[in-house]
Amino acid sequence: MLITGAYQTKFGELWDKSLSDLIFEAGSNAMKDAGVKPAEVDLVLVGNMLSGQLEGQEHLGAVAAEALGINQAAAMRVEAACASGGVAVNQAVNAIKAGAAKTALVIGAEKMTDKSSGEVALSLMGAASEAERQAGLTFVGLYGLMARVYFDRFGLKKDDLAHVAVKNHRHASLNPKAQYPYAVDLETVLKSSCVASPLHLFDCAPITDGAAAVVIQNRRSTSHDQKRVVAIAASQVATDSVSLTKRQSLVEIGATKTAVKKAYLEAGVEASEVDVAEVHDCFSIAEIMAVEDLGFCKKGEGAKAIKRGEFDFGGRLPVNLSGGLKACGHPVGATGVKQVVELALQLRGEAGERQVKGAKVGLAHNVGGSGGTAVVHLLKKI
Amino acid sequence: MLITGAYQTKFGELWDKSLSDLIFEAGSNAMKDAGVKPAEVDLVLVGNMLSGQLEGQEHLGAVAAEALGINQAAAMRVEAACASGGVAVNQAVNAIKAGAAKTALVIGAEKMTDKSSGEVALSLMGAASEAERQAGLTFVGLYGLMARVYFDRFGLKKDDLAHVAVKNHRHASLNPKAQYPYAVDLETVLKSSCVASPLHLFDCAPITDGAAAVVIQNRRSTSHDQKRVVAIAASQVATDSVSLTKRQSLVEIGATKTAVKKAYLEAGVEASEVDVAEVHDCFSIAEIMAVEDLGFCKKGEGAKAIKRGEFDFGGRLPVNLSGGLKACGHPVGATGVKQVVELALQLRGEAGERQVKGAKVGLAHNVGGSGGTAVVHLLKKI
Repeated sequence: MLITGAYQTKFGELWDKSLSDLIFEAGSNAMKDAGVKPAEVDLVLVGNMLSGQLEGQEHLGAVAAEALGINQAAAMRVEAACASGGVAVNQAVNAIKAGAAKTALVIGAEKMTDKSSGEVALSLMGAASEAERQAGLTFVGLYGLMARVYFDRFGLKKDDLAHVAVKNHRHASLNPKAQYPYAVDLETVLKSSCVASPLHLFDCAPITDGAAAVVIQNRRSTSHDQKRVVAIAASQVATDSVSLTKRQSLVEIGATKTAVKKAYLEAGVEASEVDVAEVHDCFSIAEIMAVEDLGFCKKGEGAKAIKRGEFDFGGRLPVNLSGGLKACGHPVGATGVKQVVELALQLRGEAGERQVKGAKVGLAHNVGGSGGTAVVHLLKKI
Repeated sequence: MLITGAYQTKFGELWDKSLSDLIFEAGSNAMKDAGVKPAEVDLVLVGNMLSGQLEGQEHLGAVAAEALGINQAAAMRVEAACASGGVAVNQAVNAIKAGAAKTALVIGAEKMTDKSSGEVALSLMGAASEAERQAGLTFVGLYGLMARVYFDRFGLKKDDLAHVAVKNHRHASLNPKAQYPYAVDLETVLKSSCVASPLHLFDCAPITDGAAAVVIQNRRSTSHDQKRVVAIAASQVATDSVSLTKRQSLVEIGATKTAVKKAYLEAGVEASEVDVAEVHDCFSIAEIMAVEDLGFCKKGEGAKAIKRGEFDFGGRLPVNLSGGLKACGHPVGATGVKQVVELALQLRGEAGERQVKGAKVGLAHNVGGSGGTAVVHLLKKI
């Protein structure tokens, strides 16, 4: 299974661009990157969570196909809250393996900044359970609760979270596509206002517009530049209960552990072999749990490892070189696809100033809601 | 590819049941019908269009998995407007063919009657293009435009449409799960109020709550009652432009023609071999175009063939024995799955009073929006 084309739009508050504009920019450029014409695409999958609630637009598969001049292909939207992009990639892989498609275009896209942040915050609670919404919880509130339990268990303090944002902003300063392409210092992070204790503003990913797209094909053709083709070695999705109240543990994301275990098995890869990773840092506590759940360090040691620079650019396993959700931005449905785009660039050697030398194995980790869904992709340089 | 379990809830204005209730009822009974335990299900796909807009609930894959006690499985929502149920079945087939799942539970569900019909009508326009929404078109308006073009081309009159509703209500009178399980006479249909000329009230499918579910597996086990297992011989999805303005023709649904051509090829079946069909009659004109586009009769002759009783229970090819969208009801995301459930019952010989004797081949036809998406499934008795 191969990624033959990849593209990310600029992420940010893109008030001059509509959802259709973003879908068109990402989709057409990914096809161009793959050397694929619209008529060759036989499957279009769109990862998007909120366009129904925020824009009244459903049916995005057919909308995207029409905008891109792709006729007759199969097309649909795939949704799993913030993991919508990841599951769309997964379904494309399945369809190609099944022989139902040869050339799939996967587009993740979200347009969030045309509505008030209150409306967006409310719509994002569509990722949580009905009981959690009725209890008045917010999305950051759910992660704040998990952070509290984690703090109690492992003796963390607020200051321990701050290194996540500092690292990811430093990485974003090397990524011109990032929403916030600039570094921040520890003091700025620590002095930012409290949103849902213990999480402060800089512990939270922003609201973002943006899109990303990949072309997935099952074989290389002579028209491809062989050095620019990257293999998908594993694609796994797993769920856990949407409600925090029904989870076995609140210091880990069970769905992540299930998905990554299957992914390592599928790819024949161990955690120690991963050279570069994009993980789901919707809140700083999420990145800390992710690096543990993915096997990059032991449970309870994520914050220390991040503080020591193990996951920095230049460290033993760079995590979120794109800037992550925190600093590259988090256009919900686009995020899972953007992670795969970032890894494709890294494995191709096209990541510019943030290029990891000799990267051969990349891991993308995309979470829906507070952990109801997790998607893990493993990419390999051919 | 096999359907080993199938279940439909009662369709109707189910004010005492929530979306979760409907998902649970359909999902748990389909598993029970298949003799499958929650722990055996490794993929949950939910077809749903509007729960984000109408209930603020996204992330339905994980929500359904939690409600049904299915842990760790992959789960996600698949959406293509009114074809959401059909594309969910299609993605399950792909995932199993790909080896990514062995036992998939596909649930189509929609809860529509808790909001005003005005709100629902607005949300349904999410199936159409942005330009069509901005132009003030309604969903029935879009089909009204197609009906006008069709009338002009083939010399039809309003009276010619009425036989669709009479037939489908007659069929629904034999289906206790139908929203409107009673017959109506021609005069009632003709005297109903005009909604969007030439379409009157009885030309339109209602707003409905309901769910349907199937269990799909790739092999029979000894635990299955072999006579109750039905094969999926073809599963095809195709798109056409969402906007009417960009269609090559307005007297046919191009996506239907593309999907059914591929489906007949995949299954090695001809239109003349189909014994029973469920087609997408969201409006009477849609059923007339469908029976033509699916190859059941020539273009322009659909209304006459329906009037002659060719598609009646007892006719040469019974169409919409469930009552169709018109009389069984149209809980949007459930419809595509319900069609497959109805055909499974027919091929098993479990369709009660509306059983087609000796039915061996069934065709399900599900359309998204005004024809942006079409899904065709062919089922065979083993």
